[in-house]
Amino acid sequence: MTKQERAARTREALIRSAAREFDEHGYALATLSAISTGAGVSPGALHFHFENKPAVAAAVEQEASTALRRAARLAHRQGANALQNLADTTHALARLLREDIVVRAGYRLSCSRVRRTDLNLRQEWQSCVQQRIAEAADEGLLATGHGGQPDLVRTVVAATVGLEALCRDTREWLAPDTVTGLWRTLLPVLAAPGTLAGLEPAGSASVPAARAPVG
Amino acid sequence: MTKQERAARTREALIRSAAREFDEHGYALATLSAISTGAGVSPGALHFHFENKPAVAAAVEQEASTALRRAARLAHRQGANALQNLADTTHALARLLREDIVVRAGYRLSCSRVRRTDLNLRQEWQSCVQQRIAEAADEGLLATGHGGQPDLVRTVVAATVGLEALCRDTREWLAPDTVTGLWRTLLPVLAAPGTLAGLEPAGSASVPAARAPVG
Repeated sequence: MTKQERAARTREALIRSAAREFDEHGYALATLSAISTGAGVSPGALHFHFENKPAVAAAVEQEASTALRRAARLAHRQGANALQNLADTTHALARLLREDIVVRAGYRLSCSRVRRTDLNLRQEWQSCVQQRIAEAADEGLLATGHGGQPDLVRTVVAATVGLEALCRDTREWLAPDTVTGLWRTLLPVLAAPGTLAGLEPAGSASVPAARAPVG
Repeated sequence: MTKQERAARTREALIRSAAREFDEHGYALATLSAISTGAGVSPGALHFHFENKPAVAAAVEQEASTALRRAARLAHRQGANALQNLADTTHALARLLREDIVVRAGYRLSCSRVRRTDLNLRQEWQSCVQQRIAEAADEGLLATGHGGQPDLVRTVVAATVGLEALCRDTREWLAPDTVTGLWRTLLPVLAAPGTLAGLEPAGSASVPAARAPVG
């Protein structure tokens, strides 16, 4: 293993250990010494990579952001219609948040009121929902008769953010069955009757694993 | 003012100051000295009422719990059907969370993963939703054709918990219009067509102010 490879592995171990520490104790109570111990490296090795706690947190957020954006992009590329895309994207992001401690901790850091940075992943998610529902309207997929697009956007945003918030206590809230149940309930409100039959609340079979390497 | 009245006022001022401090800095970073300063009392006066930070936090949670339970009870007493009751209750609780810093801070303390006590207000809310939807089923109010009661319960819980989580950044998420928009979207999924026309997403006019004194 080259020196660069070793450095990259140490950095990755530190980010993972920091994510565990932030997830368990919250940002305010997480300590650099617990992070370096958790990664099995010396405090000096930590300081070689990161100047201080905000720098470690920023790296965790950055990793989360990259993974979430890539998963959203992959789901979007599948070519399904906008409503199916929206459901597929929630499944992909739920899987990442459920299975990947770095994504989970990074997302939460970026939602924290106490520690506010430029990166706001929850805001990005809201924009994504808004865009997909606007596309669905353009494609003529939306049902009529509800209160209008803003109501639909807010309901989908609230329900999905709620799943993430609830998942902090009980992992099952982001399980595939729960996300599918949410779409089984919401798709009939969103989709025009002719569109509904073609939509799969459990997600398109073609959606690849969220962290699969991109060619 | 008697000695007892003065003591009660000081205690109330301390609880309010603690709520502001927890809301702004989070439990971990809140300090007793900032709490006593915010209440305009000496550290000695604080220690007369509360032994330590967990005791202050428990008092804030207790106040929040009392107010939320009373609001839920009042909404339930209005005698409307179970689905209208559910909508009315969310309006009453949203108003409390929006307007009352003690309720807001207490609710969040009780949801915190880092600091876990016996009081779990989010769990109580889940039970309340579950009960109202079961009542609606018993009363023959529920629509058929969706995935079943568990899906409906989870969707309502996720969407309402999401509103509270989003409100931490942007107060508008618990505004009456937003809550009304949520019910405008969700009631058509929950309610049988014959029931829907009689339901008011904005809440029954008869629901009293959440903190009105109970006779």
